Amino acid sequence: MEKRKLSMPYWCVGNPVGDPFGPGVLDHVTPLEVTDIICGAGKDGIIDYTSAHDDDLVPWDPENLEDDLDDKSETSKNLRIIKDKLERAGIQFKMIACNLHSNAVFRNGGIANPDPRIRLLAARKVMRALRIGSFLGADYFTYWVARDGFETQFAVPWERTYNYIKEGLNLVRRYVSEKNLTFKGGTIEHKPNEPRGEMFLPTVGHALALIMELEDPDFWGVNPEVLQHDQMAGLTSVAAVAFAASMGKLFFLHAGNQKPNQYDNDNPVLVGIDGIKEFISIIYLLYRLNWKGYVEFDNHMLRTDTAPGAKNKIELRRKYIELVVDAYRVAEKKAIELVQDREIADEQKRLWDSHPEIAAILSKGDTDKILNAKSDYRSVCEQPIEIGKLDMLVNKRLLGL
Amino acid sequence: MEKRKLSMPYWCVGNPVGDPFGPGVLDHVTPLEVTDIICGAGKDGIIDYTSAHDDDLVPWDPENLEDDLDDKSETSKNLRIIKDKLERAGIQFKMIACNLHSNAVFRNGGIANPDPRIRLLAARKVMRALRIGSFLGADYFTYWVARDGFETQFAVPWERTYNYIKEGLNLVRRYVSEKNLTFKGGTIEHKPNEPRGEMFLPTVGHALALIMELEDPDFWGVNPEVLQHDQMAGLTSVAAVAFAASMGKLFFLHAGNQKPNQYDNDNPVLVGIDGIKEFISIIYLLYRLNWKGYVEFDNHMLRTDTAPGAKNKIELRRKYIELVVDAYRVAEKKAIELVQDREIADEQKRLWDSHPEIAAILSKGDTDKILNAKSDYRSVCEQPIEIGKLDMLVNKRLLGL
Amino acid sequence: MEKRKLSMPYWCVGNPVGDPFGPGVLDHVTPLEVTDIICGAGKDGIIDYTSAHDDDLVPWDPENLEDDLDDKSETSKNLRIIKDKLERAGIQFKMIACNLHSNAVFRNGGIANPDPRIRLLAARKVMRALRIGSFLGADYFTYWVARDGFETQFAVPWERTYNYIKEGLNLVRRYVSEKNLTFKGGTIEHKPNEPRGEMFLPTVGHALALIMELEDPDFWGVNPEVLQHDQMAGLTSVAAVAFAASMGKLFFLHAGNQKPNQYDNDNPVLVGIDGIKEFISIIYLLYRLNWKGYVEFDNHMLRTDTAPGAKNKIELRRKYIELVVDAYRVAEKKAIELVQDREIADEQKRLWDSHPEIAAILSKGDTDKILNAKSDYRSVCEQPIEIGKLDMLVNKRLLGL
Amino acid sequence: MEKRKLSMPYWCVGNPVGDPFGPGVLDHVTPLEVTDIICGAGKDGIIDYTSAHDDDLVPWDPENLEDDLDDKSETSKNLRIIKDKLERAGIQFKMIACNLHSNAVFRNGGIANPDPRIRLLAARKVMRALRIGSFLGADYFTYWVARDGFETQFAVPWERTYNYIKEGLNLVRRYVSEKNLTFKGGTIEHKPNEPRGEMFLPTVGHALALIMELEDPDFWGVNPEVLQHDQMAGLTSVAAVAFAASMGKLFFLHAGNQKPNQYDNDNPVLVGIDGIKEFISIIYLLYRLNWKGYVEFDNHMLRTDTAPGAKNKIELRRKYIELVVDAYRVAEKKAIELVQDREIADEQKRLWDSHPEIAAILSKGDTDKILNAKSDYRSVCEQPIEIGKLDMLVNKRLLGL
Repeated sequence: MEKRKLSMPYWCVGNPVGDPFGPGVLDHVTPLEVTDIICGAGKDGIIDYTSAHDDDLVPWDPENLEDDLDDKSETSKNLRIIKDKLERAGIQFKMIACNLHSNAVFRNGGIANPDPRIRLLAARKVMRALRIGSFLGADYFTYWVARDGFETQFAVPWERTYNYIKEGLNLVRRYVSEKNLTFKGGTIEHKPNEPRGEMFLPTVGHALALIMELEDPDFWGVNPEVLQHDQMAGLTSVAAVAFAASMGKLFFLHAGNQKPNQYDNDNPVLVGIDGIKEFISIIYLLYRLNWKGYVEFDNHMLRTDTAPGAKNKIELRRKYIELVVDAYRVAEKKAIELVQDREIADEQKRLWDSHPEIAAILSKGDTDKILNAKSDYRSVCEQPIEIGKLDMLVNKRLLGL
Repeated sequence: MEKRKLSMPYWCVGNPVGDPFGPGVLDHVTPLEVTDIICGAGKDGIIDYTSAHDDDLVPWDPENLEDDLDDKSETSKNLRIIKDKLERAGIQFKMIACNLHSNAVFRNGGIANPDPRIRLLAARKVMRALRIGSFLGADYFTYWVARDGFETQFAVPWERTYNYIKEGLNLVRRYVSEKNLTFKGGTIEHKPNEPRGEMFLPTVGHALALIMELEDPDFWGVNPEVLQHDQMAGLTSVAAVAFAASMGKLFFLHAGNQKPNQYDNDNPVLVGIDGIKEFISIIYLLYRLNWKGYVEFDNHMLRTDTAPGAKNKIELRRKYIELVVDAYRVAEKKAIELVQDREIADEQKRLWDSHPEIAAILSKGDTDKILNAKSDYRSVCEQPIEIGKLDMLVNKRLLGL
Repeated sequence: MEKRKLSMPYWCVGNPVGDPFGPGVLDHVTPLEVTDIICGAGKDGIIDYTSAHDDDLVPWDPENLEDDLDDKSETSKNLRIIKDKLERAGIQFKMIACNLHSNAVFRNGGIANPDPRIRLLAARKVMRALRIGSFLGADYFTYWVARDGFETQFAVPWERTYNYIKEGLNLVRRYVSEKNLTFKGGTIEHKPNEPRGEMFLPTVGHALALIMELEDPDFWGVNPEVLQHDQMAGLTSVAAVAFAASMGKLFFLHAGNQKPNQYDNDNPVLVGIDGIKEFISIIYLLYRLNWKGYVEFDNHMLRTDTAPGAKNKIELRRKYIELVVDAYRVAEKKAIELVQDREIADEQKRLWDSHPEIAAILSKGDTDKILNAKSDYRSVCEQPIEIGKLDMLVNKRLLGL
Repeated sequence: MEKRKLSMPYWCVGNPVGDPFGPGVLDHVTPLEVTDIICGAGKDGIIDYTSAHDDDLVPWDPENLEDDLDDKSETSKNLRIIKDKLERAGIQFKMIACNLHSNAVFRNGGIANPDPRIRLLAARKVMRALRIGSFLGADYFTYWVARDGFETQFAVPWERTYNYIKEGLNLVRRYVSEKNLTFKGGTIEHKPNEPRGEMFLPTVGHALALIMELEDPDFWGVNPEVLQHDQMAGLTSVAAVAFAASMGKLFFLHAGNQKPNQYDNDNPVLVGIDGIKEFISIIYLLYRLNWKGYVEFDNHMLRTDTAPGAKNKIELRRKYIELVVDAYRVAEKKAIELVQDREIADEQKRLWDSHPEIAAILSKGDTDKILNAKSDYRSVCEQPIEIGKLDMLVNKRLLGL
């Protein structure tokens, strides 16, 4: 079984790790310093790809919305340097997202902001991000729902809100076509809350339903952030991943760790009170489904593990990449063991593969045949199922027993 | 503004109100007794419609799966009596659901059960429920996800599970057509958990996405249970309702009350620690959206308010219907006040209706025009929004101040 | 390191495993049949102790509240048989709880019921449970908060409610002394919700605070149900256990598994989506703290794993005991490995054991000495802490790597 | 019924309202500017008190830990100006808290930090905060649990952690006595999570239990933040307030609004999706209990309602104070109406005041008398309780009907 390709994005590396009760601790690093750290990890062979928000690469000047089209601008210059460094390190730039959450102007939303002047700024920032991403050769554009949400339900123009989102995303698709940009697809990253009290696309289900109403549904997919965004709503990431995959819409995965029903933890993979079994079960499932996508980290150092100081600012970020890649490979190794375990497969077969002749009738859906098929209620009802037994078998394998 | 039509279903009235730590308290009532209580409420003019699961009306005999087709069976006889009573009381039978959760055979799922023998029993129970519903003149068939879910992720055949659900629902649609049954549509009722640790269609988003993959998406819609099922996942019912309505998929509503992130409370409308503002905001929104559907109760008496005894068994159920209808009408009255409030509308206008010329450009989506449109960053950024002010205005109106 | 003594209580074995959407599936077993199953497990050497509610052993007749004092009553006869069977199997009866949740009369509470007539029934049922427990040689009486709670805050006499609980528990202590009963202590089992919307002692903290206000605080302790009751409030069981232990109040432990912020799962130990790391960390902690108590199961079979039928009713219950004991021993084995791991201990030492001279000054609390002690802000601030590294080390050991 | 005294603290006014995905929006204000805004509100007669963290008033210099003792320091100078301004405006300074969460050195905890060098810095910062508070005439010192918590359970020295907290709090009490400072008491402010994954005193119960183990329990009380901190753990604030009040430990209240089981919303009072009924029920309860304390705001503007710019920085903060005071007074007005409502009181009497003779027997706790008292099971069991009816009556009053 192949090792999954791994992407380490700019925002994870650059993050100084503040929280609502304390500012970032790590000293600031410039986009070029982040590029160097990522390239270093690429040269060490531990990561394959990277991704970024537009603002992670170059600053946004709301008074100069097409600076990237000017070859002589600082923006163009820096993008060329970044592209060059990444290419020389063999790091592929996979995805660009448009940051519509940091700038104060977007405090009540980006593409779904009720104020058309702000939606316009968002639209033009998105178009610039698409140009930047395409320059770097990106495969995907990601729309994270971010500040498109609300705290009070009476302040939302519900009649229009979802249309605003559709307009924004259709614009992405259209601009990609018109300008022949590099993108193979766009993704929606759902999240239930934070930074808004509620967000308009809270779960993978909402994202997928909305995609069906876009102009080109085939262009769009999802990139669930596991275990974080689903568990924030008390849902299970493994089901989110399975649901998206069943529709052929799982373009890539964002990975981290989370305590259910809390604020957005963004813990490193496997680090925290719990989450080991669920995370490994996702990696396992994706092998079982023969999924071909890649995994991108979306988490940060524990804030306790940051430290100020010039030496720390580079060294701790390097160690963080090593830690999180190591954690992923640990999960992957265990997942592969589970996939290859005969006893687990046999137990699953027992639960899933009986009576194929009845399954075939149901699958064809001929109502007469269904009405004539037979099932012995009493014997099927009295038959023990023993799911606990299967789960304990999995547990023992997980624990190396 | 018209008063909403109200439906009081059999399962709410018949419920003896047990919980995992104590059995039902109210004495058992027969389907005919429930029918009489509902008809009484109809004659009093406080309810308009009713609905039921198959098992609320007539028992299911797994050894005799087409008893309803035999004119002389107890089932047929009782259905004729029920139909007659309802008609004479002027109560319309709106919806039938197939109970795939009570019988032990469905303990690991109904239409998504991994065992095809059980899926077959489920399919045939669904077909019988459709025939029964059609006999009573039902407009809707409802699939509540119920036991289609899991507690352990390794025991689920993820490659097939969502197909099983689609097969089951496509069978409904096909059987309705083939037999020319009365149904105008089918609905999915999502729920995140309970009775299963996780359910396969946890949110309105998942239900809507799955509908898009069915053979006849137009036939299908949703009936969110507010405030319960969304709040169980920490989501907001008002957004669930708005999202479904934006897709034209809100066929009817289930109503009750819930503390967020708890077990399924099924409290009567407005009764509990909180929930007043959110519930009223939903009724308000549906007027604002000019929605034409009806509201069905889906809750039960507080268990404290039940009592054993022959007199109580009828009287308390009658009082419960009065209480919950009264609660709904209270919410409706306040909702209409809010819709008609000029000050609230003016505040909303201020937030939503500025700069229509920019809105028009964005709405048309011409990329050149968007790139040429102007928005003054600084002035838009420094403009106060004052959502708190709007919300306090709403609060005062709600509180009668 | 010693293996922990394990208790398998009557209610876990007898449970037919119903839920709010379906009745119990397993055929009913009598108290004597449960006794035989427990004794069988005792003879197999897999369990050491048992416990029960009064109603698990003998029925309660509210018209005959001292039937246990009559040597010729059915109650006395059956208690003698049970005692004899347990003694011969070498099973120690450790704890009795008074069931104040099943009978309809307690639907609005037991010892904290606002109606004094019901508090009286509760008091006398508690006294009978104490006599029964003492007859069987119980060491502990457990008060589980059960129906002492509320769904609506305006229906609670807050001025009196906590006093009612104190009166009820002080009565327990007094009756034990007066009658010289066998109990070494009483415990409170907290729970945040279910069966009530809110319960009056929702967390281990509330239970411990209330104990400090009882007549004999030394008599009382707690028995947290891990991972269930704390995780239902999104709290962490490991902290609940550590907090209670730090006060010397952790008398014994209830064990099962739970998804955070859901209804009361009562899954078997280690069975479910996740929970492995947290559960093992608790067993690990209790070794580290050199805790001498015992572990009692408080969970039940997955409802999917039940089945009706005469043969199943005994066999599946036996298999359940084997499964859950096996799960505990798996957790214990891993916990002991973690305790004995030198690398983990070294990492912890690095984090915890520096600068004992400053620790000593702080511990003595002399304000002058504290004001004169020195700490170099900059060096301490810039020193990396690396908790993630420790946690990944633990993860690898857990996973057998 | 008297209007409650209201406190508007420095941190609410000064807060520029950032979140993890975007920086503060409001322009920075100096402590003196905050003082002026607060004094303005005092002169307008809308607030009575204020409070602050040490860092809200004067910066902390870790290289100069007793700068406040030097009359000529900037710190001393500014404190004198602040004191003078507050006195002239008639604003009483009620409480000081020591900020142990903003500075990077405390990223793994303050008084419970495993590193004694950091506990020493925390202790000396606490002592300085006490001196500053006393200089301003503060009645209370508040310990908010803040960063005393964890993300991974294996990195906590559980054997020592709670002792560290006790050492820290005992030091407070001792220093207050030794230096004869102005404090009448200290309070603990619990919180379940954020900024840490878990915090060591997550609920009011934990805080109260720990207080019982301090050297001078009488000195200590609690100040629950309602609706926020309890609802973050899915608990109910009204019960937290009632529990603390029942022990005489509710020194003052922190007020805001929160969606249950989310990140710390800190919404203005009554502003949000819901929370109206629960918040008003708390104010109602405190009147019913004849509580004499005061209410302090602990929330901030919605981030959407902030705006950059020199004019906004003062004006929006003034409007925020007006909004939140108005919201409180609205809640208070409705709470007083509920207290004075005869029908509600009669319904409660019906539920609570029957059979005082049995209540008296239980209250005395004489076991013989209890065993001889009588309660007619059948009649008490069959008597309807009708809590829903009471709750709907409350709802109607709340809604002004």
